Amino acid sequence: MSVFSVEFKVRDYECDMQGIVNNGVYFNYLEHARHEFLLAKGIDFAQLARDKINLVVVRSEMDYKASLTSGDRFVVTVAFEAVSKVRFGFRQQVVRAADGKVVLDGLVIGTAINERGRPAIPDGFAERLTA
Amino acid sequence: MSVFSVEFKVRDYECDMQGIVNNGVYFNYLEHARHEFLLAKGIDFAQLARDKINLVVVRSEMDYKASLTSGDRFVVTVAFEAVSKVRFGFRQQVVRAADGKVVLDGLVIGTAINERGRPAIPDGFAERLTA
Amino acid sequence: MSVFSVEFKVRDYECDMQGIVNNGVYFNYLEHARHEFLLAKGIDFAQLARDKINLVVVRSEMDYKASLTSGDRFVVTVAFEAVSKVRFGFRQQVVRAADGKVVLDGLVIGTAINERGRPAIPDGFAERLTA
Amino acid sequence: MSVFSVEFKVRDYECDMQGIVNNGVYFNYLEHARHEFLLAKGIDFAQLARDKINLVVVRSEMDYKASLTSGDRFVVTVAFEAVSKVRFGFRQQVVRAADGKVVLDGLVIGTAINERGRPAIPDGFAERLTA
Repeated sequence: MSVFSVEFKVRDYECDMQGIVNNGVYFNYLEHARHEFLLAKGIDFAQLARDKINLVVVRSEMDYKASLTSGDRFVVTVAFEAVSKVRFGFRQQVVRAADGKVVLDGLVIGTAINERGRPAIPDGFAERLTA
Repeated sequence: MSVFSVEFKVRDYECDMQGIVNNGVYFNYLEHARHEFLLAKGIDFAQLARDKINLVVVRSEMDYKASLTSGDRFVVTVAFEAVSKVRFGFRQQVVRAADGKVVLDGLVIGTAINERGRPAIPDGFAERLTA
Repeated sequence: MSVFSVEFKVRDYECDMQGIVNNGVYFNYLEHARHEFLLAKGIDFAQLARDKINLVVVRSEMDYKASLTSGDRFVVTVAFEAVSKVRFGFRQQVVRAADGKVVLDGLVIGTAINERGRPAIPDGFAERLTA
Repeated sequence: MSVFSVEFKVRDYECDMQGIVNNGVYFNYLEHARHEFLLAKGIDFAQLARDKINLVVVRSEMDYKASLTSGDRFVVTVAFEAVSKVRFGFRQQVVRAADGKVVLDGLVIGTAINERGRPAIPDGFAERLTA
């Protein structure tokens, strides 16, 4: 089975005064890759937001193993794993294209809530993500 | 002993289409509070970067417990804990001012490396942070 | 008459690999100051967005005269000027605290539109801003 | 003559609470396209920064004509024009892929300075950009 991935290239404004991609930016990369993954499974983060269903992160763990810098190409992978009836896990890696180096290993756990902050998992959510 | 903290107010551009602060932005908040903490201890991230000593994050764990939204005031706390000779931990919380709610619980583990990516802990680093 | 202003301090993640605040970040600073100005006049950008009235920028002009760097404190000023019945201007400056240097001179022209993209200026908008 | 352009897709974290790309983000898009343009001409922003030559923006003018939203694909164009011996202009447009709509019309004027803030135009800079 192939792993879902999205290709990126570092943009200079994402680098900080150390000349490397700022730690917080990886969060953006991972989010964009997750949303593309969801979209490929028929789940549209933006449409859900308009419908007052918010997909939110409840926990993240990130291991930073190397740095990306100006000009680097890389992919971000996404693998889904069910955590519980209301929590969904996404194993994600940032892999540098030039040498296959795993730059970051991440686990992001999310859920879906409604306007009152109560769990509101769309019908068939986990089934679609594991399909 | 008082806990080090920095006061913030949510800026509207930090909110995403869900109307809440985007997950990645918390990383920025935590970083800014850590750098202010370091500065209060006499350690200047920017000066170190100019001296080719990079303070980098090697692992982060974040538990998101609630959301911040437009107009919210909050503090970010920083508590130092030594992890090993070359790894330093920072326990951090984001606490909403209006109700004292802990919005995020975080642990950020960092180290200092030189231009060749080798550990390069400034003299007296841990001592200063625990002072 | 005093000029409306908001105090800021540069956050390290706002600096790019040149060690200075990235050009795009000034846009964020100006926006935050404008929204605080609007709020002081009783106009809440976030509430308007929830009511499907979007305050949007239609033109900006910026003259960058100096750079901000790590640790710099500064203020962003906001002065309102009516441009037309449906266009509102905001003269803004970024002024470094240490020496009073004008770092950026900006003019931002905005309007208010509804969901169909049609002008939708809230009642008494210009009156409140000039009060 | 073909116009230089870079392809993008909106990332959800770039959208604000109005559900559209935040005004400040366009600055990032334009910068990334300019740096790709420079790179295609053999001028590396990051390498220059390491050599203590900073390419900086001195003026920008932006006309926002429409909004981008989640999922939109678009291109950013770059056309060079010399302004003076030490100032360089870049005419840029953001064009939505779906309908060819010009979303933003921009003019960015930049220069190159050294560590003391004095003009420091790399040899053959304008020649390379007009080649």
